[in-house]
Amino acid sequence: MEQQFIEWLKAKVGSDSRLDVGNGDDAAVLRPPAGRRTVFCTDMLVEGVHFPPAPDYDPFAVGQKAVGVNLSDVAAMAGRPEAAVASVTLPRQGGQQIAERLLEGMLAMASRFDVRLVGGDTTAWDGPLVVNVAVLGSVAPGTIWRRDAARPGDLLLVTGGLGGSLRGRHLEVEPRVEEARVLSSAFTIHAAIDISDGLTLDLSRMMEASGCGAELMLAEIPIHADAVEAAADHPEHGDPLARALGDGEDFELLMSMPEGQATQLLQAIAEGRLAGWPGTPLAVIGRVLAEPGLVAVAADGSRSTLAAKGYLHEFS
Amino acid sequence: MEQQFIEWLKAKVGSDSRLDVGNGDDAAVLRPPAGRRTVFCTDMLVEGVHFPPAPDYDPFAVGQKAVGVNLSDVAAMAGRPEAAVASVTLPRQGGQQIAERLLEGMLAMASRFDVRLVGGDTTAWDGPLVVNVAVLGSVAPGTIWRRDAARPGDLLLVTGGLGGSLRGRHLEVEPRVEEARVLSSAFTIHAAIDISDGLTLDLSRMMEASGCGAELMLAEIPIHADAVEAAADHPEHGDPLARALGDGEDFELLMSMPEGQATQLLQAIAEGRLAGWPGTPLAVIGRVLAEPGLVAVAADGSRSTLAAKGYLHEFS
Repeated sequence: MEQQFIEWLKAKVGSDSRLDVGNGDDAAVLRPPAGRRTVFCTDMLVEGVHFPPAPDYDPFAVGQKAVGVNLSDVAAMAGRPEAAVASVTLPRQGGQQIAERLLEGMLAMASRFDVRLVGGDTTAWDGPLVVNVAVLGSVAPGTIWRRDAARPGDLLLVTGGLGGSLRGRHLEVEPRVEEARVLSSAFTIHAAIDISDGLTLDLSRMMEASGCGAELMLAEIPIHADAVEAAADHPEHGDPLARALGDGEDFELLMSMPEGQATQLLQAIAEGRLAGWPGTPLAVIGRVLAEPGLVAVAADGSRSTLAAKGYLHEFS
Repeated sequence: MEQQFIEWLKAKVGSDSRLDVGNGDDAAVLRPPAGRRTVFCTDMLVEGVHFPPAPDYDPFAVGQKAVGVNLSDVAAMAGRPEAAVASVTLPRQGGQQIAERLLEGMLAMASRFDVRLVGGDTTAWDGPLVVNVAVLGSVAPGTIWRRDAARPGDLLLVTGGLGGSLRGRHLEVEPRVEEARVLSSAFTIHAAIDISDGLTLDLSRMMEASGCGAELMLAEIPIHADAVEAAADHPEHGDPLARALGDGEDFELLMSMPEGQATQLLQAIAEGRLAGWPGTPLAVIGRVLAEPGLVAVAADGSRSTLAAKGYLHEFS
């Protein structure tokens, strides 16, 4: 029953000095951190689209992902996530058990990043699981990472490895919150986006919003081991590089920054001088151009037009 | 296509001085109003549960409701709504048309209350329509209306009329934002809740949270004309009073306030002295008791135990 669930949630979540009113009221009331702007985003996950249909999904993993994808969005603004609210529509049969595992997954991800789950809404129906999370964060006014402010000459950097996330990594989102905090406090980043729909698709969005284009050095793209394995299993869906360029759900940070800043950053990491850096791989993969469009630069230096590929939610 | 939809949304929504970053980035960035606390809530609407199954729903009305129910929650904290984000999972067939009407409904409700739609997320699937809205608001620290602070001796007041909302009113939510603003700025309200699941159920929640009970004067319950008509059509589901006590989705404010304050308030309204009051009916329907539980007081003064009834989202 819903009321029992809310009571269970209240007991799980506990109290917090940042909260005036927590779970169980019409809305939560929070104290905004002084001198910072508010970051606000939302993401919905539906069974069979963002996670496998029952009985092949683990509600715990779904809960982690539902919070994680939002934290990734907050990180891509250089924000610090503060609080989350969740809405869950549960299958009537087995809903209680799903709800508890789901919530435990949400809480596990939230607590890793000191985010409070402050409210929610539950519904039951004779349908699949649908989960929505909205996250509030904060950001220093001077260091907001927009996606529309990349500049020609900037270098493009990406965290982690790309491609093949459907092998399971897409359910184990590692939001780059710490990375964003360290980078935004010490370096100038002109623009950033998190890679949710595919490197080339999200890069093309950043470049279009910024009125620029970009060249990608294909030999520098960090290909995840999952992309290699996925390409071995299903070569008809592309080689490892193609998967890194277009698979999506990597939830890595793609950043555009001045070359001098990028050089200093890479040196600081190489010399172990970047305080708080979690050790995440960071690769320079290309450069921003004044001309629109994407260009692929092969290892031999040959250039060709690169189509933006990735995951689109099609409807008509 | 999703990207086209985002562009259309950006054009519709425009820019706003309260926004550092609006639609189309990973997250929105807002300037929090100085000296106020942040209110945060969310609500999910699913086809066939919160609105009729296709083709019997109007996406415009669904959009209005999706925003409206959240504004009602913000009002029930004495908050001022500021911004909203929406997630929509659309049927693949006809999704574009649904999305546009839905968004127009959201924008219509949002703009009535000066709320900005600052972001969202769209998915397509071969399933019914699911909509989630999360709303950010602000509230003065000294006048937050909790639900757990009713005190014995308080009078219970309710806005508007109750019951029969399924005849259509449940899709035409009138969030009591202005009423909450006027009342919170001039009077002491100990506790408040919005009636979403039914008067007696939501009253019992407020009383349980406050460690109190309540008596309701049955003759004073404001019965909506919809409840009378619904009872005439389907007498097997209860008389008009029973419907006012338990139907739910009224989205009216239920408030607990000191008797002296209530008297002053009613006088001010009766004499037309309450600046900004929108003319909404306001009724004293009962009183908070020290003893737990609900008591019905009939017109002849006889007392009986009242069961909390309303809408519960059952799952097991």
